Amino acid sequence: MPLSEFELIERYFRRCGAARADVRLGVGDDAALLETGAGMTLVAAVDTLVEGVHFPPGCSAESIGHRALAVNLSDLAAMGARPAWALLALTLPSAAASWLEGFTHGFAALAEAHQVALVGGDTTHGPLAVTVTLLGQVPAGTALRRGGAAQGDVLFVSGTPGDAAAGLALEQGRLAAGEHSEYLRRRFLFPTPRVAFGERLRGYASACIDVSDGLLADAVKLARASGCGVELDAERLPLSAALGALGTRQARELALAGGDDYELCFAVTPGALGRLEAELPAAQWGYARIGALCAAPTVRVRDATGELSVAATGYDHFSAPQP
Amino acid sequence: MPLSEFELIERYFRRCGAARADVRLGVGDDAALLETGAGMTLVAAVDTLVEGVHFPPGCSAESIGHRALAVNLSDLAAMGARPAWALLALTLPSAAASWLEGFTHGFAALAEAHQVALVGGDTTHGPLAVTVTLLGQVPAGTALRRGGAAQGDVLFVSGTPGDAAAGLALEQGRLAAGEHSEYLRRRFLFPTPRVAFGERLRGYASACIDVSDGLLADAVKLARASGCGVELDAERLPLSAALGALGTRQARELALAGGDDYELCFAVTPGALGRLEAELPAAQWGYARIGALCAAPTVRVRDATGELSVAATGYDHFSAPQP
Repeated sequence: MPLSEFELIERYFRRCGAARADVRLGVGDDAALLETGAGMTLVAAVDTLVEGVHFPPGCSAESIGHRALAVNLSDLAAMGARPAWALLALTLPSAAASWLEGFTHGFAALAEAHQVALVGGDTTHGPLAVTVTLLGQVPAGTALRRGGAAQGDVLFVSGTPGDAAAGLALEQGRLAAGEHSEYLRRRFLFPTPRVAFGERLRGYASACIDVSDGLLADAVKLARASGCGVELDAERLPLSAALGALGTRQARELALAGGDDYELCFAVTPGALGRLEAELPAAQWGYARIGALCAAPTVRVRDATGELSVAATGYDHFSAPQP
Repeated sequence: MPLSEFELIERYFRRCGAARADVRLGVGDDAALLETGAGMTLVAAVDTLVEGVHFPPGCSAESIGHRALAVNLSDLAAMGARPAWALLALTLPSAAASWLEGFTHGFAALAEAHQVALVGGDTTHGPLAVTVTLLGQVPAGTALRRGGAAQGDVLFVSGTPGDAAAGLALEQGRLAAGEHSEYLRRRFLFPTPRVAFGERLRGYASACIDVSDGLLADAVKLARASGCGVELDAERLPLSAALGALGTRQARELALAGGDDYELCFAVTPGALGRLEAELPAAQWGYARIGALCAAPTVRVRDATGELSVAATGYDHFSAPQP
């Protein structure tokens, strides 16, 4: 017997994620009531995952729950913000208990890890899609933006981009990676949003963006918002051992033009480089220098042999061919 | 040639809705930055409209844009809150300019009327669905809830419920209404959320809910959240002339069990009735007394002939048959 919408909310969503003292009223009324902090700016982001577009049909429910929150945590990380409250709009073909258990397990585990409370939502019937709105806070005047950098600023990326694109290709049977398959698959299915690092970057980064459409495409967005061009050094791309095992050429292509990384790409002024390296050591925080912003509004990627031609510049929902 | 996601955002969503001084950063970065007011509680609601579930296939884009915001404005009205900022997650099969123009026209006109700024969003490829997250504020400690009423409180409803359900039936060719068709259709396609009235009800209503799943079903939700049962008087249902022309029996059924009204159902303690009637006259604000809350956890609807059997108690997404 199918669950009613009321039972579904009671069973899966009434208590989901962290409990927070600043939630005056959570799931179950017409809207949530939330207490914001004095001197804080509210930060709000929304992202949708659609079956067949953002994840392959048949993808694990736990991964979908995790990713639906992770992509938004990554947006808040890119602003240097601390996440607090989530709203979940879930459109389902049917209310299957096993699917809902997996989904809420994936969502709740990540929410608890980041002290995020689920405070509201909407469950509707239709083709599988998940929209999460994430709210958080940042001390007034300190948020990171895409458009704060200038020519000469050095460009960095966190983590090891390209793993997730390889993981998706594995999930779709377009790639074989032997012993590394499980690692790469998990990098697609359970990405790690860089929330703590984003918060620490306040006061160091001159601009920041999260890498969701591909490192090169997102670096270009940061550069354009800052009125600059970008030069990347392919030799410096931080590749995981698993990605590197695919061969340098394919690994670099995936790192530059793949997507779904949910890493942070950020710029630092030359004058702040010493502080960054001393106070947030790269070895501890896991980031690498990959290039710089330049005055000319151009996009250049170089390796030891010279300038690379870069065809794919990231995923675009309306001009890209559909999977 | 199809629009890119970037062009789509620039053309349709960069400037949409009201301009607000408290928006530090709107559409175009990883997240929006918003300044909340001192002494205010943040109010957040989310609702999804799916094609074929919440509106018929081929429904006008302008209506979809209007309704996607209206259903959320209604949620905030039910809390007594003032809306401020919206995030829009739009999933589209294709980026057709004429559809987007209609959609944003419908959305923006209602947003401007309520001083709501569109501050963020996500556009994705997939089956047509719209999720709006609406944020607003209410003075701390004054929000209306479903669960604040007690036995003996008098129950009211705003507007003329049932019109929208008749309008949907007309859209779907399940009903004929002659000269009243256009009025009833518009009540479904362009509902009027009771935002100003919701704000005025602070300090008068002991509980409030918005009527989206049908008046009876939502009145029962208010009663249950308040630990009460409910008695409705069908003779008192405020019917529009257009709905009444369908005949008393069908009109009352639609008013009780239809949906998509986006009116407010609220309770008032006997001691506050005098103030309500003196300070918010029913003739000016458009509301009617329809029943009362009782101690027994029962649901009763009476008319002049006695007690009615009420079969349909509202729309449920997972136990109702799909349209």
